[in-house]
Amino acid sequence: MENRKELPIGVFDSGVGGLTVAREIMRQMPNEKIVYFGDTARVPYGSKSQSTILRYSRQIVRFLLEQNVKAIAVACNTASAYALPEIEKDCPVPTIGVILPGARTAASITRNGKIGVIGTSATIGSGIYADYLKEIMPSAQVLGRACPLFCPLVEEGLWEDPVTEEIARRYLADLLDQEIDTLILGCTHYPLIRRTIGKVVGPDVQLVNPAYETAQELGQLLRDMDLQAEEAPALGAAESQYRFFVSDMAEKFRQFANSIIKYGILSAKTVNIEEY
Amino acid sequence: MENRKELPIGVFDSGVGGLTVAREIMRQMPNEKIVYFGDTARVPYGSKSQSTILRYSRQIVRFLLEQNVKAIAVACNTASAYALPEIEKDCPVPTIGVILPGARTAASITRNGKIGVIGTSATIGSGIYADYLKEIMPSAQVLGRACPLFCPLVEEGLWEDPVTEEIARRYLADLLDQEIDTLILGCTHYPLIRRTIGKVVGPDVQLVNPAYETAQELGQLLRDMDLQAEEAPALGAAESQYRFFVSDMAEKFRQFANSIIKYGILSAKTVNIEEY
Repeated sequence: MENRKELPIGVFDSGVGGLTVAREIMRQMPNEKIVYFGDTARVPYGSKSQSTILRYSRQIVRFLLEQNVKAIAVACNTASAYALPEIEKDCPVPTIGVILPGARTAASITRNGKIGVIGTSATIGSGIYADYLKEIMPSAQVLGRACPLFCPLVEEGLWEDPVTEEIARRYLADLLDQEIDTLILGCTHYPLIRRTIGKVVGPDVQLVNPAYETAQELGQLLRDMDLQAEEAPALGAAESQYRFFVSDMAEKFRQFANSIIKYGILSAKTVNIEEY
Repeated sequence: MENRKELPIGVFDSGVGGLTVAREIMRQMPNEKIVYFGDTARVPYGSKSQSTILRYSRQIVRFLLEQNVKAIAVACNTASAYALPEIEKDCPVPTIGVILPGARTAASITRNGKIGVIGTSATIGSGIYADYLKEIMPSAQVLGRACPLFCPLVEEGLWEDPVTEEIARRYLADLLDQEIDTLILGCTHYPLIRRTIGKVVGPDVQLVNPAYETAQELGQLLRDMDLQAEEAPALGAAESQYRFFVSDMAEKFRQFANSIIKYGILSAKTVNIEEY
């Protein structure tokens, strides 16, 4: 019988953004194996509808289950908002999204109860951060703002650029007027421009990167279920420890991924996800 | 027996950009019916691979043929670059793309033979404008530049905005240094920011919008094949004359389309294109 503890964790995102979550899992749980799927043929999800996001997410879950994962982390805010509540109903392995961990952290650190959330149009339109925050902290005032240009700016590499700063000023003006003291980076791309966002909001607003907390909660979940990997992988086993799949443009993905993760992503394979 | 002349023209794009081509067809051929398909569930195409773009385009062609179209206009530069050469091999109705018409116009108006082309990463990476231009005008010097942020900026509505102008200055600096006198707007979104692009390149550079010339060539093709619609549609028949289908977000599409086309787009229907 196979040892379930030694099976990989499945992590998926619409594209490259979820790598910021994968990176946190690698840092916090160096013994774990990861199978990552980025839906680069259909990225972005953030401008799409719930039914489309759910259909795409279900296909990816089927692919990850075929890879024999022991748990699935939905490392995409949009998919966490629109697909996770459905997926967890019938998924045979434990699942975790990025939204609840991010909401918990924000509620624990805000002083004035005014919490800003930025994300894709779909994530903000879903209102899910506000729903979770109100449950955890009924007195919270939650202010959401969609930032559709942030992902393209990140992917164009303009992480610290006057244009990104100007766009951030426009997107964040209202939230700052309302005196938020906490800002949730509600899209897995945004940690890559956190320095620019931090410059715009100033030192009095605390930024919440749900990637960190998601990895924390995933670790707890694995411990609770006695699913933690016990053995450190053999030296030089990076390729088999971390496997990357995409629905398109494997080489471009590999390059981008290597700029984010320093664990040597040796290759990425292409999968025709529409067949799942 | 049905009268083939009265059948609609199929027009498709990865999303809303192809509406600039549909608009030209409506203007130049007011008797024609149009079935438009926008692949809003998988937009954008410009950052994806040839095999993915071809697979998506084939699905859309199957859908349009099921709608009984008499001809197909590929109103997307990326799909014209990567899919049209394959599609036209076995398509039972005549097809036209946007690239050859744009290249012909550019070759006919350049004075110094230095032609710039801007488009998505996929279109520019394909080198297809240069291939066509060299065939038409062997002495041409063709300078391509991918402009990945233009589409998101257009979709965010920043058509005449200092940010779009700043990004345009960066993208176009090299082409201007090389003294192009003609610039092909090699993506169907770009005509919507032609005023900003025109401001950056100045009055000495002529902008080529392939939408106009594509509609011209389509008209000629229909005349040559005796497929021109002869009857003007009945008054108030806009809904049946122009039918719009998308793979996602029909309401958002309808709103955007109505800001571009003034013929009263009454509705857009959603199709699950992955089933084709």
